[in-house]
Amino acid sequence: MRAAYITETGPAEKIQVDTLPDPIPQAQEVLVRVTAAAVNPIDTYIRGGLVAMELPLPLVVGCDLAGVVEAVGPEASRFRVGDRVWGSNQGLLGRQGSFAELAAVDEQWLYPTPDGVEDETVAATALVGITAHLGLVQEANLQPNETIVVSGGGGAIGSTVIQMARALDAHVVATTGSEESMAYCQTLGAEKTINYRSENLLAQVVEQVPEGADLWWETSRNVDLDLAIGALGLGGRLILMAGRDARPEFPVGLFYVKCCKLLGFAMFQASAAIQRKAAEAINDWLVKGKLKPTIDRVVPLEETPAMHRLQEENTLSGARTLRGKIVVKV
Amino acid sequence: MRAAYITETGPAEKIQVDTLPDPIPQAQEVLVRVTAAAVNPIDTYIRGGLVAMELPLPLVVGCDLAGVVEAVGPEASRFRVGDRVWGSNQGLLGRQGSFAELAAVDEQWLYPTPDGVEDETVAATALVGITAHLGLVQEANLQPNETIVVSGGGGAIGSTVIQMARALDAHVVATTGSEESMAYCQTLGAEKTINYRSENLLAQVVEQVPEGADLWWETSRNVDLDLAIGALGLGGRLILMAGRDARPEFPVGLFYVKCCKLLGFAMFQASAAIQRKAAEAINDWLVKGKLKPTIDRVVPLEETPAMHRLQEENTLSGARTLRGKIVVKV
Repeated sequence: MRAAYITETGPAEKIQVDTLPDPIPQAQEVLVRVTAAAVNPIDTYIRGGLVAMELPLPLVVGCDLAGVVEAVGPEASRFRVGDRVWGSNQGLLGRQGSFAELAAVDEQWLYPTPDGVEDETVAATALVGITAHLGLVQEANLQPNETIVVSGGGGAIGSTVIQMARALDAHVVATTGSEESMAYCQTLGAEKTINYRSENLLAQVVEQVPEGADLWWETSRNVDLDLAIGALGLGGRLILMAGRDARPEFPVGLFYVKCCKLLGFAMFQASAAIQRKAAEAINDWLVKGKLKPTIDRVVPLEETPAMHRLQEENTLSGARTLRGKIVVKV
Repeated sequence: MRAAYITETGPAEKIQVDTLPDPIPQAQEVLVRVTAAAVNPIDTYIRGGLVAMELPLPLVVGCDLAGVVEAVGPEASRFRVGDRVWGSNQGLLGRQGSFAELAAVDEQWLYPTPDGVEDETVAATALVGITAHLGLVQEANLQPNETIVVSGGGGAIGSTVIQMARALDAHVVATTGSEESMAYCQTLGAEKTINYRSENLLAQVVEQVPEGADLWWETSRNVDLDLAIGALGLGGRLILMAGRDARPEFPVGLFYVKCCKLLGFAMFQASAAIQRKAAEAINDWLVKGKLKPTIDRVVPLEETPAMHRLQEENTLSGARTLRGKIVVKV
């Protein structure tokens, strides 16, 4: 099969797009003929060796995939040959990745693709959608009519969180970095938007949410805790899921006197059962049109190294040249 | 009535012990003939004007009290004249305090004193006991066989948390500042103790809790977040309820990759209904001998100014001259 893989960790140039032996599905694995896969920042961290994890080598890169069941392992029972499926959480924790013509994936990490929803759509929704659901539902238990501030609403996670919070009937305020991105966040469902480059940002947030936010979702790798906690109301929650090397100052008094909660999570730590619950809700919202991933571009598998560079320029260097997900068509 | 009160905020010398008019119980208030009251750090912060709160002046100081019902207001129904009662959460948020011969307290903040439990005991348990219960049960939902690290186990909060965590069938590791205090924490029920002045403190904690702690309760005003979060296991929780001016560095990656939760709370923000649940559990444990406050000394009302100074020397300046609560006998 054709695959994008590495034989050692390192920069994007380490990715080769070439032939590897076809995998044979073992035990509860399902062999998926991959049609679409999406790039996520974690793909680049794993490829770069920044995440301490067991890696089989050669390692096919990538977490997210969509495709059609080609064969099933001897103990697999959830899917049949010909079923359309999607999934995430591959290419890490010792598992092979998704950027290949074929991927042998444990059935616990696969979900049915609903009729009428395209493979590129589910591939682009996978990791960001499950992450948004884990945060909003599992971690923060967001309730209808609560107010959430999405810090960095224009990014891949932020834009998904905006849509999903609206699907959960919450009020959404988004902060983002440009007039154009503010308009984009509004099309996603944000009722109020704030340019985070404004002076007196906290005052602006407080003006928009005078009673204090119930939830602040931080997507940036450099959270300003005085801002985020300052914007919360009594009992407000703050979600952190990015910024591995960040060490911001933590305003202890502001936090505990308002009985705030700080919720950290990493999607890959969630159990398969919990991720499946997220996937079921995502499928429902995709069918109803409440969730629509923004896809920046669709490219062939051969462009994977260039796409890792593009993702890194945006995630790490703030290039702002991406609006939505990079999808690879296999 | 005799009372310890201030007519303006300021240092401990602002406290006068003199005569004030007897309060008359209004609406749902209960007039308590106070027999014992206990000093808490928050008494000194409120007296000093460090907490922004509405204060009626003259303000009787103090939160905690125990005594006997002397009269009841026209709408009070929970207690009868002659009932023994205890309570906390007075002397703040616009309410008068407890360091007086008589206190008119809304019945929602009073609880029955169990037979066989002394007034000095319930007074000394009140705020620290409710705080420990709010944190362990309401906030952290501590489960049997979970492991908690109590950072500062020798203090008034820490010693109560140790006992209550043991009453909840958790495993308790206490850190404290001396050999003598380590022995004291063991008598309270700590299974393991660590001197927090040791070198390589994190390594010592990890040695005692190799799988990572489920809960870290920080009692110090200067939390070391690298230590506390570093000691947590996957999904571990960290309680913060002190350190108004602290601004420690927050290790974001360490926190979210382990899916940790940071739980802030201030006892005075909890509803009367939730505090009552805590008081019921406390009464049960007091009767069963599972909770026994350490009382450092019992002094007459006249010594209130000196006792505020003593409390401050310990809370703010680390004098380490207190082992347990200061109780005032009225």
